[in-house]
Amino acid sequence: MTYCVGIRLNQGLVFMSDTRTNAGVDNISSFRKMYTWCKPGDRLITLLSAGNLATTQTVVGLLEEHTKAAGDRNPDIMEVPSMFQAARLVGETVREVIKTASDNGAQSQAAFSATFILGGQIAGGAMRMFLIYPEGNFIEATDDNPFFQIGEHKYGKPILVRALDPDMSFEMAAKLLYVSFDSTLKSNLSVGLPLDMQFYERDSLTKGYEKRVEATDPYYRSISEGWSDALRSAFNSLPDFKRD
Amino acid sequence: MTYCVGIRLNQGLVFMSDTRTNAGVDNISSFRKMYTWCKPGDRLITLLSAGNLATTQTVVGLLEEHTKAAGDRNPDIMEVPSMFQAARLVGETVREVIKTASDNGAQSQAAFSATFILGGQIAGGAMRMFLIYPEGNFIEATDDNPFFQIGEHKYGKPILVRALDPDMSFEMAAKLLYVSFDSTLKSNLSVGLPLDMQFYERDSLTKGYEKRVEATDPYYRSISEGWSDALRSAFNSLPDFKRD
Repeated sequence: MTYCVGIRLNQGLVFMSDTRTNAGVDNISSFRKMYTWCKPGDRLITLLSAGNLATTQTVVGLLEEHTKAAGDRNPDIMEVPSMFQAARLVGETVREVIKTASDNGAQSQAAFSATFILGGQIAGGAMRMFLIYPEGNFIEATDDNPFFQIGEHKYGKPILVRALDPDMSFEMAAKLLYVSFDSTLKSNLSVGLPLDMQFYERDSLTKGYEKRVEATDPYYRSISEGWSDALRSAFNSLPDFKRD
Repeated sequence: MTYCVGIRLNQGLVFMSDTRTNAGVDNISSFRKMYTWCKPGDRLITLLSAGNLATTQTVVGLLEEHTKAAGDRNPDIMEVPSMFQAARLVGETVREVIKTASDNGAQSQAAFSATFILGGQIAGGAMRMFLIYPEGNFIEATDDNPFFQIGEHKYGKPILVRALDPDMSFEMAAKLLYVSFDSTLKSNLSVGLPLDMQFYERDSLTKGYEKRVEATDPYYRSISEGWSDALRSAFNSLPDFKRD
């Protein structure tokens, strides 16, 4: 599995992804699941991926035109005029990749499935964030639903639902993501460190702050240990049950 | 779906279950998922069920010998000499029910699947709690793993993992279950109020405190509202993220 989150703040976008991939619990590896295309002043597009690694890597490879010689590459995703068109391009690509894999004698489309979060901004357009399904269709983050999760999303959802506020600073959103990822990591072996985090400042049209969070990261460890204590204190602060 | 939890404390057992069943989101009903067999001084056996409602109701019906006339019923579960035998009886019954449903032309066994938590005590034996799989086999709660969840377990797990202590009182365990259920109810429509809760005091061999928690329950509402605030305070109490 995988766990990736994209948050749409009023100030900008925050992305976080883990790096664990596994084929069974005895065959795990580390792969980056965050891809960024950037032409400063023109566009910043970031893609997070969850699902079959062959599918997600092929989708990214096609988006980057790896089928062409290095000198001839001029990927569409660097040319599309809007984020909506970028989402459509990713959706069409993933549908095509899954279809090709499934046509080749394999029985289940589910095994090749993949889901994406796409966010960013292109000059002349608004900052937008989409959740793209394996079928190629997509939905957009709104004020009512300012975040998307893909992969193993259940453990880390309650804190996002309760504490996320689009007026938050990037730093507060980062702290929230650390907590959400720590809850998931503690409960599910298929999500693993290191984590990748990226900020995009609205209207900057260039890549913002980036960080790779390793297992030894002192802030990650302070959150991981502090959150257990904080949860227990929160629990103790609630009124006690009395038999009636 | 469903959400049920059984906790093995040093003092005894605590059970909680929701009552929502659904066939699609537009067809929901309320069914009790907690069944108890009790002969004071001899045995107390409580069963929590998750899965296909036809399967779980048939299992309970067979355990209660509903195939016989009311006067002839003398269910095995009231006669088995140990909790281990009770778990085996439930396991064999569920395997049989699923097999019968699947043999009848249906393609997928998964659709008839059901999982159970069985806990209690029989005179002369220890208090025990089991998780019973659709295949009929089962595992027992131990000091290392003093609780079982069935159904929609992911949202409510992080708080159980972090705050559960077998030395807790019944009241503290009840509070913990209220929080765990509230986290699940807030995130998943297929788990719904009212909830059923039951305590079993070790070596009492009779039914303990019981409660049905309705949506209007003032303690449930104080936990539900208080937990959101407490989580936010816990979150704010953590050190803030700083860009490096």
